[in-house]
Amino acid sequence: MTASAGRIRARSAELARIGGAGTSVTRLGLSPEERRAHELVGRWLERLGARVRRDEANNVIGRFGGRGPALLVGSHLDSVPRGGRYDGALGVVVAVEAMEILAGARLRRPVEVVGWTDEEGVRFGIGLFGSAAAFGKLPPRARERADAAGTSIAAALRALGLRGDPARARRRRGELFAYLEPHIEQGPRLAERGLPLAVVSSIVGILHGRVTVRGRQDHAGTTPMGQRADALAGAAEMIARLEAAARRRADAVGTVGEIAVAPGAKNVVPGECVFSLDLRAPHQRTLDALVREVRATIGRVAAARGLAASLDVLNQVPVARLDRGLRAALRRACAAAGVDAPELVSGAGHDAENAQLAGVPTGMIFIRSRGGSHSPRESADHRDAALAASALAHAIVALAG
Amino acid sequence: MTASAGRIRARSAELARIGGAGTSVTRLGLSPEERRAHELVGRWLERLGARVRRDEANNVIGRFGGRGPALLVGSHLDSVPRGGRYDGALGVVVAVEAMEILAGARLRRPVEVVGWTDEEGVRFGIGLFGSAAAFGKLPPRARERADAAGTSIAAALRALGLRGDPARARRRRGELFAYLEPHIEQGPRLAERGLPLAVVSSIVGILHGRVTVRGRQDHAGTTPMGQRADALAGAAEMIARLEAAARRRADAVGTVGEIAVAPGAKNVVPGECVFSLDLRAPHQRTLDALVREVRATIGRVAAARGLAASLDVLNQVPVARLDRGLRAALRRACAAAGVDAPELVSGAGHDAENAQLAGVPTGMIFIRSRGGSHSPRESADHRDAALAASALAHAIVALAG
Repeated sequence: MTASAGRIRARSAELARIGGAGTSVTRLGLSPEERRAHELVGRWLERLGARVRRDEANNVIGRFGGRGPALLVGSHLDSVPRGGRYDGALGVVVAVEAMEILAGARLRRPVEVVGWTDEEGVRFGIGLFGSAAAFGKLPPRARERADAAGTSIAAALRALGLRGDPARARRRRGELFAYLEPHIEQGPRLAERGLPLAVVSSIVGILHGRVTVRGRQDHAGTTPMGQRADALAGAAEMIARLEAAARRRADAVGTVGEIAVAPGAKNVVPGECVFSLDLRAPHQRTLDALVREVRATIGRVAAARGLAASLDVLNQVPVARLDRGLRAALRRACAAAGVDAPELVSGAGHDAENAQLAGVPTGMIFIRSRGGSHSPRESADHRDAALAASALAHAIVALAG
Repeated sequence: MTASAGRIRARSAELARIGGAGTSVTRLGLSPEERRAHELVGRWLERLGARVRRDEANNVIGRFGGRGPALLVGSHLDSVPRGGRYDGALGVVVAVEAMEILAGARLRRPVEVVGWTDEEGVRFGIGLFGSAAAFGKLPPRARERADAAGTSIAAALRALGLRGDPARARRRRGELFAYLEPHIEQGPRLAERGLPLAVVSSIVGILHGRVTVRGRQDHAGTTPMGQRADALAGAAEMIARLEAAARRRADAVGTVGEIAVAPGAKNVVPGECVFSLDLRAPHQRTLDALVREVRATIGRVAAARGLAASLDVLNQVPVARLDRGLRAALRRACAAAGVDAPELVSGAGHDAENAQLAGVPTGMIFIRSRGGSHSPRESADHRDAALAASALAHAIVALAG
């Protein structure tokens, strides 16, 4: 069972042309570009003998084999704006390649390959959207959530030919007996250690929030420094302190990726500043302590500066420890493919956490990548991806063969 | 010669309805709202006997009297977005009121009342636009400057029925023998001292710049804190340090009123951050030292964080010391109106500096105001404005009578 790096490279390049410009890819969830990517993957799976369908959340699924609980494998096909070509997409290509090299093998149990929709949650603010729908993890009234233009998720799904209710995509208990997801690491650890693959031990917990700082809009020339309540100056101090709070905790990260000020004129002291907050840690205790410290810091900086500040929690995902048995099975499968794979924590959220947290035993394989991620500089070696496909094929045989 | 607070209140309220909502006014330079304000002021001046014209920069000018060098008085009629109703507009109303109470007086020399256009420079980034055109202080190729939608100043002027070349508004040498501008203080000093009026001694020098910080766009979950080049975290440290640098210098101020990050997603480490810079001081040496320190700080923070940063100077205005003789004349005129007016530095830029720096002797009267400025909370007492109108009328008689 040896996967073809050339076939992976070709399929990866074909996918990257959808929404691609140079080495960057813009293929937002629930967009026409993502739809075309789903159709392309569907054609690959049909050629390998799968029955392909689209569920009501816009996930694409190809099923191999007959009745009974299935082993699900796959990843997502959407990207961030100006992202790279490997995040998500390479995992789907690896899953397709695993089925390609298993084409001759008779499997006792059904296997499904999935391409999740809208993992990034850019447009509607619900990350891991497709897998959340499949595993009953959508936030309340998700279908009514609107994008910046006022279009709801329901309307976006209808525009894609679906009925507008993503909750209908929910898998019934017992339909799936396990979920395996190959994905690029999106971080530097495998590259630093010179290793092609890792098995994921757990996925970080995440808090996504929005901080609103309210001060007093004033004239930038006539208001002495000592009489200001400058919302942006306060926010800048908060951002500096939350960066320091994350730095002090091993494996924790804290990021402010969005910021806006009002009224937003060069000669007006900002009366309001709103920024995003992304806090992550691999241990629940660490995350909870970081969140507490950041919350206290925001309050303290605001009080010292005569500002009002609030933190709205938009989304909070607990740390997900992946299935112990599947972790062992994936390490054995990597060994069968010739790789001594270490275990690593995932710093990114993944569709896998929705499966695991919903009680479907879940495992993940990380593929070495370079150049970070969510960026056109993101890259991976197709030979590493071929090792992942071989390992995944071994795991599929072990679990469904 | 006693001005009417009631007439000033009524005219001020009539002006505030143009672009007004509650206590806020949005009347951007070169907008239809500003145009309507100019037309209203033009009607007032015509009723008082002026010949009213609009120049090629969109300033409105009403001339009283015949040939020869004129005394110019007035202020501007535009506002920032969601600004107050007094900044600029009250100065024009006061100038109109001064001519109203002088209606019976025979003046030896002509007087012109001006409503400058686009003092705030919000849309095209050229502050003091109308007076810059009149006094030959426009930046090179100003007419080609475009707004965010790509519309040039030339096109905006043509849309207002003008020819599209603001430089044609330039006043000839000798056309004006002095310029006097009444304006709200926009700061707390007169209110703190319980005084209604002040005479401006000098106008602060200003540097307007744009700082661009370039880092590395990365995944917010998988990039360890120690391996980031976060453009916004760097910008936050720069903003905190430039605030401290301004605080350390008496009478200096430093403001960041605009900020934007790219790509601007909550789960992406910002690869780029651009923010505005507004530095001011009443002494040239202080301003120069502040600019040097801010420039060095930006470079140091960038170097320590592996970022690239640059400061583009968009506009630099030297400190303008106002005419010594006119300052004395205005103090005498205030005294004649019953006010012992102190001298104050102006922390805001004013159209007056363009006149003074172009060699036209210039003076300014500050009217006590509250609630800061560039904000709907800005306010002034119409009785204080009436005192200013009386003082201005005395000064006009002294200079042109």
